[in-house]
Amino acid sequence: MKIHPVIMAGGSGTRFWPLSRKDRPKQFLRLAGDAPLLAATVARLPPLARADRTWVVCGPQHAAAARRMLPQLPKDHFIVEPCARNTAPCVGLAALHVAARDPQGIMAMLPADHHIAKPAAFRDAIAAGAQLAERGAIATIGIRPSRPETGYGYLKLGPRLAARGGKGAPRLHAFKVERFVEKPDAKTAARYLADGSYLWNSGIFVFRADVILEEIRRAMPVLGEQLAQIAAALGTPAYARTLKRVFPECPSISIDYGVMEKSDRIAVVPADFGWSDVGSFAALPDVRSTDATGNVAEGDALVIDGRNNVVIATEGRPVAVIGLDEVVVVDAGDAILVCRRDRAQDVRKAVEELTRRGRDEVL
Amino acid sequence: MKIHPVIMAGGSGTRFWPLSRKDRPKQFLRLAGDAPLLAATVARLPPLARADRTWVVCGPQHAAAARRMLPQLPKDHFIVEPCARNTAPCVGLAALHVAARDPQGIMAMLPADHHIAKPAAFRDAIAAGAQLAERGAIATIGIRPSRPETGYGYLKLGPRLAARGGKGAPRLHAFKVERFVEKPDAKTAARYLADGSYLWNSGIFVFRADVILEEIRRAMPVLGEQLAQIAAALGTPAYARTLKRVFPECPSISIDYGVMEKSDRIAVVPADFGWSDVGSFAALPDVRSTDATGNVAEGDALVIDGRNNVVIATEGRPVAVIGLDEVVVVDAGDAILVCRRDRAQDVRKAVEELTRRGRDEVL
Repeated sequence: MKIHPVIMAGGSGTRFWPLSRKDRPKQFLRLAGDAPLLAATVARLPPLARADRTWVVCGPQHAAAARRMLPQLPKDHFIVEPCARNTAPCVGLAALHVAARDPQGIMAMLPADHHIAKPAAFRDAIAAGAQLAERGAIATIGIRPSRPETGYGYLKLGPRLAARGGKGAPRLHAFKVERFVEKPDAKTAARYLADGSYLWNSGIFVFRADVILEEIRRAMPVLGEQLAQIAAALGTPAYARTLKRVFPECPSISIDYGVMEKSDRIAVVPADFGWSDVGSFAALPDVRSTDATGNVAEGDALVIDGRNNVVIATEGRPVAVIGLDEVVVVDAGDAILVCRRDRAQDVRKAVEELTRRGRDEVL
Repeated sequence: MKIHPVIMAGGSGTRFWPLSRKDRPKQFLRLAGDAPLLAATVARLPPLARADRTWVVCGPQHAAAARRMLPQLPKDHFIVEPCARNTAPCVGLAALHVAARDPQGIMAMLPADHHIAKPAAFRDAIAAGAQLAERGAIATIGIRPSRPETGYGYLKLGPRLAARGGKGAPRLHAFKVERFVEKPDAKTAARYLADGSYLWNSGIFVFRADVILEEIRRAMPVLGEQLAQIAAALGTPAYARTLKRVFPECPSISIDYGVMEKSDRIAVVPADFGWSDVGSFAALPDVRSTDATGNVAEGDALVIDGRNNVVIATEGRPVAVIGLDEVVVVDAGDAILVCRRDRAQDVRKAVEELTRRGRDEVL
């Protein structure tokens, strides 16, 4: 069974400003350890999948940096989207490329900017998803919730799926998906947690290239037609021109909303591999080591009488934080952020204001 | 009546770190406006006193910078203390210098690091103090309290003093001092405020040079003897050598504690000239302009959803503060401070820790 991991590295969010910039988005940052999130995403794949079968989808402004960061990947495995059109076109475009090599190849769609604490458990889950995918399912990885999180989508478990492996095959722990659920409010999230049959939607999917293309044609016929035009040009000198013409016209819709929620082939592999989507600075204590009083204190950070702070001081100058709890302080060299930890989502407001002021040099 | 202002610029505190450093103490900082506090202290004296009668006392490490900052003062009006010995030796040494020119000269002792919002009212108060000083009193300036401040010493008013000026002389509004009071606790401070007969001790004194030297001899005979040794060398080639030998031996005691509290010649001029001792970053909203939500936001400060913060961002890079109230954020270029406003006194803890770590380059 050949697995073709496809790393979705097209993100360009602002929630990690001032560390992240237009030309250095989240997936390029060393948020969860010594390696950038994108590099760590690729590094955790072997021995499940080989580097020469691994793909990266990203925007034109990040392609060169991604290639430099991942020299072990084939040069032509960097799929460059002319512009960001959400995940449905991204998945479709990647499926064309994989299908051209291996029509029934199993794709593992992996966000480039997540953290996974237990890579072996992660690979086991992907392997289980691949088993499901091989027989035509669209497998998603569902994370057992550990808290009433309102920032994630959820999956409601349906009936258990029977294993169909041969004699001696590992017992397959998988379920049908009854439905996808949008980010809930706090009360609903608490109910989901107590209920036990709801999992976090990790955004990780495993499917055959031919299956997902078929599902796209069925659920999103316009996108299906657009992908067909690109497919016709694939491997010809007309490819770049066609992509540049057709791709920006594609509907900007997520694969979850555009395809998954309308498909009856969805299965879910429940898993628990220390997953975090590293959604904002507030999540760093989940993915980095903290001191005895709960502080993430990087570099020259100096926390005095403070708890549960995130202080990033890796610019060679001291950052002293005194008498404060639950704050985020980031020195990025040419810009500084100080933010209440539970307001870390609002970092975008600073980006908006700096955009309004024309401070492009720090955006 | 010749007034000889003596600016006490020997301070070397740490409460304004990271703006203040060993070689750039508080009085050299532009905390309350466009001019450094020391320069503003000198600039508010005319027409009450002339620059060529103004003196500065400071440490050897700051003398060159003080001379550069105050080119209008005579070169020999910078009295350099070999080391810091609190205010009693400072006052005594200055009195020797003034007495050598003008034995009954009236000295106005002025801290170099205070802010005064109403300079004309300040000069009126000093002029009133000079009237008292001329007839032998030691005049202090008492500030009418506007809040139950626990960070200042207080003066308890005694009986009102009768005016002794000639016909047409302005009515003198002055009192005996019943006693000096140390910094009170919150309850006591509230009582002082309600009582009405307590004033803040501004640390500003006016007296004749011969009078203060006599009072020092009476109340601090050891210091009196040490000053006599220095006086004998004054104006001779032995001065520097003698000062260097004798001054470090002087008792390190404040003029308030060593002399004022033991003298019966103390009078007080109640005044209200927008005085602040600018004790820490927490005081900056009192001496600088604030925005509509109470923030002091200097330079590239960007306060989003926050009130009553002090954000100093004068290093040419943006400092974004999101969702926080009552914090101090200071970017000093090579070091950054983030502190709860009511913990601004604890900035010294950061200095202590950096000292322990041997980070001399930011101290």
